[in-house]
Amino acid sequence: MHGETGPSQPPRSLRTDRMEALSDGVFGFAMTLLVVDIVVRPPGTPLHQMLRAWPSLVAYVLSFLTIGAAWMAHTALTDRFERTGSIFLRLNLLTLLVVVFLPFPTGLVADALRSHVGEREAVTLYGLTLLAIRVMGFALVVYARHENLYPRHGGDEELRRAQQSPLPVVIGYVVAILVGLAWPTVAVLMYFGITMVLVVPFRTVARVVFGHG
Amino acid sequence: MHGETGPSQPPRSLRTDRMEALSDGVFGFAMTLLVVDIVVRPPGTPLHQMLRAWPSLVAYVLSFLTIGAAWMAHTALTDRFERTGSIFLRLNLLTLLVVVFLPFPTGLVADALRSHVGEREAVTLYGLTLLAIRVMGFALVVYARHENLYPRHGGDEELRRAQQSPLPVVIGYVVAILVGLAWPTVAVLMYFGITMVLVVPFRTVARVVFGHG
Amino acid sequence: MHGETGPSQPPRSLRTDRMEALSDGVFGFAMTLLVVDIVVRPPGTPLHQMLRAWPSLVAYVLSFLTIGAAWMAHTALTDRFERTGSIFLRLNLLTLLVVVFLPFPTGLVADALRSHVGEREAVTLYGLTLLAIRVMGFALVVYARHENLYPRHGGDEELRRAQQSPLPVVIGYVVAILVGLAWPTVAVLMYFGITMVLVVPFRTVARVVFGHG
Amino acid sequence: MHGETGPSQPPRSLRTDRMEALSDGVFGFAMTLLVVDIVVRPPGTPLHQMLRAWPSLVAYVLSFLTIGAAWMAHTALTDRFERTGSIFLRLNLLTLLVVVFLPFPTGLVADALRSHVGEREAVTLYGLTLLAIRVMGFALVVYARHENLYPRHGGDEELRRAQQSPLPVVIGYVVAILVGLAWPTVAVLMYFGITMVLVVPFRTVARVVFGHG
Repeated sequence: MHGETGPSQPPRSLRTDRMEALSDGVFGFAMTLLVVDIVVRPPGTPLHQMLRAWPSLVAYVLSFLTIGAAWMAHTALTDRFERTGSIFLRLNLLTLLVVVFLPFPTGLVADALRSHVGEREAVTLYGLTLLAIRVMGFALVVYARHENLYPRHGGDEELRRAQQSPLPVVIGYVVAILVGLAWPTVAVLMYFGITMVLVVPFRTVARVVFGHG
Repeated sequence: MHGETGPSQPPRSLRTDRMEALSDGVFGFAMTLLVVDIVVRPPGTPLHQMLRAWPSLVAYVLSFLTIGAAWMAHTALTDRFERTGSIFLRLNLLTLLVVVFLPFPTGLVADALRSHVGEREAVTLYGLTLLAIRVMGFALVVYARHENLYPRHGGDEELRRAQQSPLPVVIGYVVAILVGLAWPTVAVLMYFGITMVLVVPFRTVARVVFGHG
Repeated sequence: MHGETGPSQPPRSLRTDRMEALSDGVFGFAMTLLVVDIVVRPPGTPLHQMLRAWPSLVAYVLSFLTIGAAWMAHTALTDRFERTGSIFLRLNLLTLLVVVFLPFPTGLVADALRSHVGEREAVTLYGLTLLAIRVMGFALVVYARHENLYPRHGGDEELRRAQQSPLPVVIGYVVAILVGLAWPTVAVLMYFGITMVLVVPFRTVARVVFGHG
Repeated sequence: MHGETGPSQPPRSLRTDRMEALSDGVFGFAMTLLVVDIVVRPPGTPLHQMLRAWPSLVAYVLSFLTIGAAWMAHTALTDRFERTGSIFLRLNLLTLLVVVFLPFPTGLVADALRSHVGEREAVTLYGLTLLAIRVMGFALVVYARHENLYPRHGGDEELRRAQQSPLPVVIGYVVAILVGLAWPTVAVLMYFGITMVLVVPFRTVARVVFGHG
């Protein structure tokens, strides 16, 4: 389980379990912190206040699923690690730094969509953060592949997803960010679409629906 | 421990330990976040302010135990998993999304019971969230059973509880939600009763009290 | 590692690792949440504001060490578990419920010591919570011993500490709570003394200082 | 995995996994809590408000990386533990106490750099906390080495980093704290430099860049 290395690879022998434990903690806590930003505010009847909280809800679901997708890619990647190394640990910390940052622009977007003030700025910062999460996630894959941190053969569908070229998604985010400069709400819809692409396992769903195996 | 699958089931081979670690983290954080919503507020003497905080306390205990019950069912279910799969991971994320949401309506209920403003709306949203947690928990059981993620034979009492038909509890929640439209406080009492049914292991208590075996 | 039970003990076969993971998460998060209550407030120069924050700091250290002591007793107890059971899981949840509650009276005490309003009420609630944590911790030990959840023979010093009669500490807390009704600050000092007794391993320190063995 | 000790070392036989789990949780939460302190505030256009939030961002990145460095040293140290002991557990709790405290001075620094009030006091407290984290981390190494908690032979680069004399870093912090009494902003830059030295694995980077092995 720990990826103890033999005597032939002395400099890269750290166990992976604590890296995974820290990452699971940070991913999970970042998900949970998102709910703190959901608030109801006067004016209006209680029901109106709740209904007017929809931007908070949209931002919550969107950010939760984005972190969830990043966690799934992270899990699929390190699932097969036999060891980890100094540089991977640090790239991992940078990834977590970006993930942990997400609740901040999430709150900005929720506030901006509600108050119609600063929507463009908030949505742009939000998009840049989503983009950074995706790019850092792929940097982990590239580095791990380059350093042979996991066996090349085999690998399940989840890992194949994590290894896919991030170019389509990156282009999608860049387009959405540019669109958001003019129409912030449209950008949010585009972020939602990209998140769905990242989260929904279309191929597996098809296999389950149309027959097992 | 990891549920490595043999070569005959390539597409469903992810380890279960990180799914469990993320879930434990999220359940635990959601429980802990609840305490942030307990506040004392003027007016009144310090003692009065504390005594007037009882709705916060009731909501705290109720939500804590609900999340605890969901965690116990989750543990009993994945305890026997040999592997997990792409779709289960995503159903699990959706379950966590609903669990993490609970502190928000918990805070609304506490505020509403204290201020007597918006009780009906808050209690209804709270009930719907409790219902969603129960339904998502059962969806996990149904999917896991359908996909044979755990061995059918054996299983302890905790797993039998998790596999029980959720219909009585769902009906209970629906009735409580409807009652809450007229009498919100009564609905809270009903939620409390349902939570007790979910949490207290009557059969095991009887066995311990009346003899071991 | 998981405490899989043989076929002769069917009803008590849950793994202990997730119970430990949830507990570690909740203990750790409760410790971390305490820092949220440390605040500086006008009036005064920045240095004065910081110095006037000392009640927050005292309450932070006191609560952190209390949770730490509860965590150490919990670890020492479940360290030797071969399995866990339905009722222990629920007693454990109740213990966590009390632990998670601690940041609330901690914040009350810090506010009260600063503003000199409601000190008596805050310090009393704080003491009752400390007492409840200790009592719940001992209830776990008693139940585990009664149900033979861990082997009787052996056990290290940490476990012996966890198994000690809680009576002296309980009496200490009760006396401190009563004293606090008249002199709240004295009660805080007494809580500090009791926490030191719980945390400092006098016997082990003596062994390390006076020779290994 | 658990570091079960043989019958010859009865008093120091606790498993290390829960100590690691609690530590990972606390390090992770402390990292995540930092983001709560990033806020935008009037006056100004939304873009101005965001740009004026740069002290929050600097403080966030700095504290995140400091905790990350402490976590890496902690991981490298306990990675090779075969057992843990009563006193190490308590030193570990004290280390966590200081780590958890960091979000408080981080928030103070961010507020002070933004408002230009109390910069000196905030930056000094921040530096003292960074220093305390480093000193506690080294105390763990010294105690573990003294008590032979891990095998002396072998050890990877990460552990060698953790075992390095902390004197240069401690001197760096002390100088930065003294400089900060006159020029707080310069001290923040110096903290940044020290953190970079702690986080960037120059030797490993050189090895990766100039050839593997």
